Amino acid sequence: MKKIINNPSNFVEESIVGLIKSHPDVYALAKDNNRVITRANKSSKKVGIVTGGGSGHLPVFTGYVGKGFLDACAIGSVFASPSVEQMVSAIKNADNGNGVLCIIGNYGGDVMNFEMACEMVEAEGIKTKKVIVADDIASASESEKSKRRGIAGMIFVFKIAGACAETGASLDDVLKTATEANDNIRTLGVALSPCILPEAGKPTFEINDDEIEIGMGIHGEPGIKREKLRPANDLVDDLYKRIMDDSKLKNNDNIAIMINSLGATPLEELYIISKRVNENLSNSKINNVKTYVGRYATSMEMAGMSITTLKLSDNLKKNLFAKSECPFWNN
Amino acid sequence: MKKIINNPSNFVEESIVGLIKSHPDVYALAKDNNRVITRANKSSKKVGIVTGGGSGHLPVFTGYVGKGFLDACAIGSVFASPSVEQMVSAIKNADNGNGVLCIIGNYGGDVMNFEMACEMVEAEGIKTKKVIVADDIASASESEKSKRRGIAGMIFVFKIAGACAETGASLDDVLKTATEANDNIRTLGVALSPCILPEAGKPTFEINDDEIEIGMGIHGEPGIKREKLRPANDLVDDLYKRIMDDSKLKNNDNIAIMINSLGATPLEELYIISKRVNENLSNSKINNVKTYVGRYATSMEMAGMSITTLKLSDNLKKNLFAKSECPFWNN
Repeated sequence: MKKIINNPSNFVEESIVGLIKSHPDVYALAKDNNRVITRANKSSKKVGIVTGGGSGHLPVFTGYVGKGFLDACAIGSVFASPSVEQMVSAIKNADNGNGVLCIIGNYGGDVMNFEMACEMVEAEGIKTKKVIVADDIASASESEKSKRRGIAGMIFVFKIAGACAETGASLDDVLKTATEANDNIRTLGVALSPCILPEAGKPTFEINDDEIEIGMGIHGEPGIKREKLRPANDLVDDLYKRIMDDSKLKNNDNIAIMINSLGATPLEELYIISKRVNENLSNSKINNVKTYVGRYATSMEMAGMSITTLKLSDNLKKNLFAKSECPFWNN
Repeated sequence: MKKIINNPSNFVEESIVGLIKSHPDVYALAKDNNRVITRANKSSKKVGIVTGGGSGHLPVFTGYVGKGFLDACAIGSVFASPSVEQMVSAIKNADNGNGVLCIIGNYGGDVMNFEMACEMVEAEGIKTKKVIVADDIASASESEKSKRRGIAGMIFVFKIAGACAETGASLDDVLKTATEANDNIRTLGVALSPCILPEAGKPTFEINDDEIEIGMGIHGEPGIKREKLRPANDLVDDLYKRIMDDSKLKNNDNIAIMINSLGATPLEELYIISKRVNENLSNSKINNVKTYVGRYATSMEMAGMSITTLKLSDNLKKNLFAKSECPFWNN
């Protein structure tokens, strides 16, 4: 897989600069840290919303900074956690005296570093809370839900928490709404081909030309099973059943769904997948309120996709559909 | 390259159905033709805007149906022109007595079939005009501009013509604005790797692991030169210079730019490219008003990208920035 890059060791910095130059009305570089992005127009009277994580997943993480989304983001190297220092900077940049909610994908380094960063800023008087997103049903059983990895479902939590904070809700209330979102999200993905890390120059994993891996993580973490590629409908039915079994959705529940490409898988295929997911839903009594299709959480040029369901209460629905200003979210 | 599909011969129909099921508030299938998409809520008092072309380029063509964009689109098989009958259906579905502007990418079959379709509907009393988008500077010299292929610049023409029609402008006035847009667009791309046609099951072209082709078309049409992969900045500087030489942009001109992925090339790389384009512009006296970065005109999982410039008059600017409702355009 060829890349249009310069020196691989500048990959992250150059893409950050490009992001800001491309959308100067949305993003700004933090004054105190060149691996932290804030909103171009900082909010002065609301709970701050912060995330952070490795590079290589755009629009995740930093693309979701914007009005009605995140206030700041700490940016790690490709597939690597940001440092504690970067997270401290992101939290401080997002705070305006109303406290900060950190929304963290459930990866060891990200969680550990955010815990340390929160301790450090708390000592300086900034109140923080954390939501650890754990939506990947392939990575742990329902009884151990808190051990699950955070994948595409994160975006729903960013959106909902961001909208809630925008209303002027308190830190505890934003935490409550973000937690409600996190509890009601289920994601399951499938990987078809790896990506190449710019500095390593080789694929993240190996997989045969006729094989796929259900539940593989976005960094190539082991999934549930490796199997032969099969027709889209069979594959979707399998993923759909696993998600439904896990989510325990009931008749008359309202949901939103997200069909997410890991990068190379094109829109045409996502729509074939969406067709089948929506057909399955039509045969149930579950009400799909909104379908999101696109590249929301990627692993650069990895081929594959994930399906996410979000069970919507009135509270979640209101926040999901609230207006926002972010290049990667179409209201 | 593996694909998540069912029977390859159903690829187009299934992705159309999925598109509509995913966005039922935006798109609808024409009642008289299952290869024509119209707006879900048809407009009753404006010039109709129509396009058509081969599948495999989403969001081009049919993704750009929506308020402030297209009214209807005829959908061909993968990389193949729609039929005259499909185009006739699209035009009739878009017409409400105010005439129809057909915006056509400059490909032999698309142009020929639209010409026949226009003749047929004119005989039935529907007034039509045509704009043939020719923005790919690699495909013919400036003196033979009308022979150029239509690529990512098409989206600017869709947006601007769609916004102009929405104001209630006459067919002649919409034609004039769309023509002004088309005359002021320049695009140049580079291909890194091919895509695979679902029915053929093999790559559209062959290219060595260390090679790229400047100016290759989105269906694999020959470009200007095949060369060794080089650093992003060198490559961008080369493309930028060619575009500037061709466009004859002057000091104080306002432009919009689009950095478009052909599919697999990820956002991280697009932003590295955007950084360099914007640096080049900063060193000139040309004023970049807005940068669009993303996957606007693709060839499924092809790797590569294109850079488009649009010189903005006040008229073009007003229409480019007018509000629209389309899942693939963030106002």
